[in-house]
Amino acid sequence: MPVYDTPFDGLAVAADALTTWTRAVLGALGTPDDIAADVAEVLVASDRRGIASHGTARLPNYAALVEAGVMDPSARPVLDGGRPALARFDARNGWGHHACRVATDHAIRMARSLGTATAVVKGSNHFGIAGWYALRVSDAGMIGIVMSNTSPLVAPTRARVPLIGTNPIAIAAPAGRFGAFCLDMATSTITRGRIEVAARRGETLPAGWAIDAAGRPAGTPGAALAGSLLPLGGAEETAGYKGYGLSLAIDLLTGVLAGAAFGPNILGLFSTEGPSDLGQAVIVIDPAALGDPGQFESRLEGYLAQLVGAPTVPGAAGRVLIPGEPEAEAAAKADATGLVLDRVHAANLSSLGSRIGLPFPA
Amino acid sequence: MPVYDTPFDGLAVAADALTTWTRAVLGALGTPDDIAADVAEVLVASDRRGIASHGTARLPNYAALVEAGVMDPSARPVLDGGRPALARFDARNGWGHHACRVATDHAIRMARSLGTATAVVKGSNHFGIAGWYALRVSDAGMIGIVMSNTSPLVAPTRARVPLIGTNPIAIAAPAGRFGAFCLDMATSTITRGRIEVAARRGETLPAGWAIDAAGRPAGTPGAALAGSLLPLGGAEETAGYKGYGLSLAIDLLTGVLAGAAFGPNILGLFSTEGPSDLGQAVIVIDPAALGDPGQFESRLEGYLAQLVGAPTVPGAAGRVLIPGEPEAEAAAKADATGLVLDRVHAANLSSLGSRIGLPFPA
Repeated sequence: MPVYDTPFDGLAVAADALTTWTRAVLGALGTPDDIAADVAEVLVASDRRGIASHGTARLPNYAALVEAGVMDPSARPVLDGGRPALARFDARNGWGHHACRVATDHAIRMARSLGTATAVVKGSNHFGIAGWYALRVSDAGMIGIVMSNTSPLVAPTRARVPLIGTNPIAIAAPAGRFGAFCLDMATSTITRGRIEVAARRGETLPAGWAIDAAGRPAGTPGAALAGSLLPLGGAEETAGYKGYGLSLAIDLLTGVLAGAAFGPNILGLFSTEGPSDLGQAVIVIDPAALGDPGQFESRLEGYLAQLVGAPTVPGAAGRVLIPGEPEAEAAAKADATGLVLDRVHAANLSSLGSRIGLPFPA
Repeated sequence: MPVYDTPFDGLAVAADALTTWTRAVLGALGTPDDIAADVAEVLVASDRRGIASHGTARLPNYAALVEAGVMDPSARPVLDGGRPALARFDARNGWGHHACRVATDHAIRMARSLGTATAVVKGSNHFGIAGWYALRVSDAGMIGIVMSNTSPLVAPTRARVPLIGTNPIAIAAPAGRFGAFCLDMATSTITRGRIEVAARRGETLPAGWAIDAAGRPAGTPGAALAGSLLPLGGAEETAGYKGYGLSLAIDLLTGVLAGAAFGPNILGLFSTEGPSDLGQAVIVIDPAALGDPGQFESRLEGYLAQLVGAPTVPGAAGRVLIPGEPEAEAAAKADATGLVLDRVHAANLSSLGSRIGLPFPA
């Protein structure tokens, strides 16, 4: 996921204070405190990791869903079938963050005894950043693969209309002195949020980002926002069909497998027309099942060391990066000097707090 | 994988005759007949599916490896540790096709009872198309995810030199009247073989395919062949770091997890300097563990029907395709009217046959 530039006109807030306040807001919306703790942790982790689009900035949207009666803030996920290494949870239209945390912990326990396990979730809602769950697996010493389907914003290769989601996938593993390897990516070239940033900045768009409503390459953010995102790879000539195939494969492993909604049948992001019924999947593999887990980690660490030392292309922005490195650096900076929220983001949270009677701490 | 155009000046051969001959050639190289049957089936399936670069065209290269004593044609994979849902096989430097067929069948059996299972392979060799193994899982009614690492041909984002492989991934599942969903892709924008085709055709290259030896965008096939392939997504601006991350994640799940070679430590393709020691991984998920398997398949079928009926972009080459559809069409055509091999490909097989004393059947 892209780490956004630190807002020029930002507002600093301590991560702990933001977490406590977010948890209280969730409680005021009718969320039991243990569930609120999970949701707050995932949202603030997203802010700390520099993925402002997936963190507390979404709280007003979530509140609207709860207040419209479209999402059930108190629902608890229930185990709904499976076999020893494959479990399905029904999130029962509750918080996606909590349901997927529960599913992740279940998959970790299954994999600890069996070597590999999968947990899928149906009836879910948006769960924030996939990387949070994958890192939870990595923190347990294992390899985590986490996926979600999402609202249709992407045009399949050759299609003129958005029919599939930006369906994210995160893959994480412990990596010695590099902390963790954590690839966390949408399967579109870029996210809709990035195009909104381009609109605010008055940028034009490179080829491969989006098409307009008529299916032609979108040169401006306005044209793109009225059209569709392109899958990773962009146009057919530059192998956009691979990104399309990956997005579809993720939907197959989440919505289709779990028995949730999928593809064009998913409602728009934060629509109050009805429940999201998203699908999520967590695959866990335990390297310790194949011998000393330290060997896996040290092999990975050695590999990554070979990559960061590589000679770079002319004009490179810096050395070769490890997936997850920019996000980990953003989190370290936020923890050291406080989170810096975009002023609009902070103002929206402040309004929400005033309305609910929980003053925003910044 | 790209389906190559039918060769203009091709030579027709019946798939059955090619399989029988290939099996005999493998036997003459010292391969036990049951192993030769696996290898021949995978190679000819690649030809039938239009992926000429990964099929019998590689037989002379394989023969060279065996004759140089670098690969052991008679080695049998052995189970080498694991837990109930995670197994490692040591291919003991034998045929990758056979080792991965054995690992796939093992993972299918484990998943049938547990719901999910993973088999990894170390000490392996090139295994042809990943899609063959994924389709074997799909034919068993399950979801298959198959990966391999490969020789370093791709430059990580910002790097000037090739350090990671084109590391393919295939994902397949049964899809009703669509036969199977089968995404089978390299994680580079295109393969080196496609650049060789561009060289023969005198084409220039689009941005996003490759960089030259100095790390600048490669405009010609010659510059690209002296440089590095780019990961899916191309340059950093068009999210090439996602393709880089995927390639690295596949290496993590194959070479690093299985304890095989990985990244820059893998020898060049068909190098006779030493064993390849490739790593492969097969993840199997059984939808039947979550209820009626027919429901999964009919959901997927309905989803794909929604996609192929979508309105298309101006100038589209045809309707929206399903991953694996072009390859399945190529196979159906080959089975109906015979395989058409490129004349150079056929001539190379003919020379090999003459040398070994097994006349080529075309």
